[in-house]
Amino acid sequence: MKIGVIGTGLTKFGEIWDKSLRDLLAEAQLKSLEEAGISPKDIEMIFTGNMCAGALSGQLHIGAMAAENLRLNVPSTRVEGACASGALAIRAGIAAIESGAAKIVQVNGVEKMTDVSTEQVTTALMGAGDEEVEGFQGATFPALYALMARAYMQEFGLTREELAAVPVKSHKHGSMNPIAQYQKELSIDDVINASMVSDPLTLMDCSPITDGASSIILATESIAKKLNNDAVWVVGSGQASDTLALSNRDSLSEIKATRFAAEHAFKQAGITARDVHLAEVHDCFSIAELLAIEGLGLAKKGEAGKHAAAGHHYFDSKMPINTCGGLKSCGHPIGATGVKQAVEIVHQLQNRAGKRQVKKAEVGVAQNVGGTGATVVVNVFKR
Amino acid sequence: MKIGVIGTGLTKFGEIWDKSLRDLLAEAQLKSLEEAGISPKDIEMIFTGNMCAGALSGQLHIGAMAAENLRLNVPSTRVEGACASGALAIRAGIAAIESGAAKIVQVNGVEKMTDVSTEQVTTALMGAGDEEVEGFQGATFPALYALMARAYMQEFGLTREELAAVPVKSHKHGSMNPIAQYQKELSIDDVINASMVSDPLTLMDCSPITDGASSIILATESIAKKLNNDAVWVVGSGQASDTLALSNRDSLSEIKATRFAAEHAFKQAGITARDVHLAEVHDCFSIAELLAIEGLGLAKKGEAGKHAAAGHHYFDSKMPINTCGGLKSCGHPIGATGVKQAVEIVHQLQNRAGKRQVKKAEVGVAQNVGGTGATVVVNVFKR
Repeated sequence: MKIGVIGTGLTKFGEIWDKSLRDLLAEAQLKSLEEAGISPKDIEMIFTGNMCAGALSGQLHIGAMAAENLRLNVPSTRVEGACASGALAIRAGIAAIESGAAKIVQVNGVEKMTDVSTEQVTTALMGAGDEEVEGFQGATFPALYALMARAYMQEFGLTREELAAVPVKSHKHGSMNPIAQYQKELSIDDVINASMVSDPLTLMDCSPITDGASSIILATESIAKKLNNDAVWVVGSGQASDTLALSNRDSLSEIKATRFAAEHAFKQAGITARDVHLAEVHDCFSIAELLAIEGLGLAKKGEAGKHAAAGHHYFDSKMPINTCGGLKSCGHPIGATGVKQAVEIVHQLQNRAGKRQVKKAEVGVAQNVGGTGATVVVNVFKR
Repeated sequence: MKIGVIGTGLTKFGEIWDKSLRDLLAEAQLKSLEEAGISPKDIEMIFTGNMCAGALSGQLHIGAMAAENLRLNVPSTRVEGACASGALAIRAGIAAIESGAAKIVQVNGVEKMTDVSTEQVTTALMGAGDEEVEGFQGATFPALYALMARAYMQEFGLTREELAAVPVKSHKHGSMNPIAQYQKELSIDDVINASMVSDPLTLMDCSPITDGASSIILATESIAKKLNNDAVWVVGSGQASDTLALSNRDSLSEIKATRFAAEHAFKQAGITARDVHLAEVHDCFSIAELLAIEGLGLAKKGEAGKHAAAGHHYFDSKMPINTCGGLKSCGHPIGATGVKQAVEIVHQLQNRAGKRQVKKAEVGVAQNVGGTGATVVVNVFKR
């Protein structure tokens, strides 16, 4: 597989009170078109990832909205897999091109979350879990990930300080990313002493509520080569599923679907974990980043926390992780996250990542998770 | 394009109070597997259409649920385009096969609507329109389609009696379909004298609130030929978009996206409207059926009402339409509808439609609409 990314677009991430769901989506769409140097009429299909607009804006049918924003009548579809919606939209775009149905596709992600109360957001997000088994019992996502963190700490002896190294690194990266929601550094103490959300996770272990949108343009190899002499290539894509409810899993200390998705994506890309120069992973909570790194094979089981504490995941260290600031510091507009991860990898591979530029980055991986790991997508990008 | 439908599954449609969203989905999934004579592990990817489970059951992430129901870890994705979600899932399944990513795919549709109040359902359904322009102003779907009906009556002189012929025919067909929500015939007077919902549409012009699920198994041509010597083939698929809000359209008396989607699908299938033997169309409201028939080119503009009144759309007449009873009589579990349309066409082409069997049916078309026509999918099936 070799599909070109010929344009990227991101809005600012944060509390964007002066822009609507539609405004955010349109802004990212127009930016990716501008960067690709093409006009709306060149787009043959559109796929958009969104999770919560039904609950938070009363708006479903985001596919039609994305087409209308470009004044197009082309096929335009929303895909949803909770927090993995963005990467699922990328996969739909890949399938459209690989099937021959389209040569140039726009893939977007969008979420507008700050217009309603935190309670409404928390309730809507529980749609990612198992409503009957988890939501109905009062479980929320911080609580579910806290269970995973506790199980992992128990099994592998991860310390609170090692876990706190994850958001500290994310905020360092976020401080160097102009679109990030939070551009301020944190200390280990800041993380540990922040208000407790669900033991052991404090507020600084939890990704925030964010507005934002993201967009990329995908094209066949021949068109990409014609339009962009610095195109980045999607060379592998994997997706896997697991039970919605944590209680139905064999283990709480791994996200098995990451392993399955990575195996498929790496095989398709013809790489192994050793070939990966940087990764964007789904750090909705600090523990999730460690599970992702291990699921991708970038660390042995139980060792990712030590690597984090040793500073290996900084942009200028051994294995740069979440150079954009991750979900924690860049922000987590749910549907937009998976596409934003792709944008960050593309910018790094194109040497456009400014102060947080990784040296000699040629292979990048994006891992996007829905729920507590019921859906995982892994996409591999190459220079 | 030639993709085989090798299995179908439908639950009963109606107020199914003893089954949950998950139960309904699982039932349809298992039925389609059983009919195809394959086991869950033969399924390589799953796509599921659903619109409202987030709002009505607090459950998003239906893709993962569908995989879990079959105890599979394969890629499984929810697609949503309002009431066209089911047919969009079929298109996603087609793309998966055409791209070479999978050889056998399960496509499902599901909706669980009767556990909450009618007001909650009406509000959730408005997510299909434009929330800012229509929903926020208090418009509901009966009101929007009533505007289209009025415009059409004004322009083409359609009478109230001609319009009423649509649900009368649908209920006749529904009375012959064991899974239909309503199996009772109606008269023209019953329709006209029913309680007014939004002038000129009475309660009997409006599709009901329904629980139900539907499933089909798609396979490559060679696998389909091996597994099923009576496979029906998907030979064309088209999708088009239009503005979310009615007020941004050029005309209220046509659904332009149907025309665009049909042009593409018919061209791909190598047919014209004259080759079509029967059609399942999206009669969410009586007027929508007439707009669909004309959009597909099965009647000239302004003439579908006369054909309806003349009885041409009965299963044993010139151009059988909605032989399952349509959304009106068979019921309209939103996400399930598009896949159920495919199931009805497949059963007709396989000579399995019982009392309502169309004679010499070889080419069938399914048209599925999201919102007031902001998304339309047209799929063409051949024996």
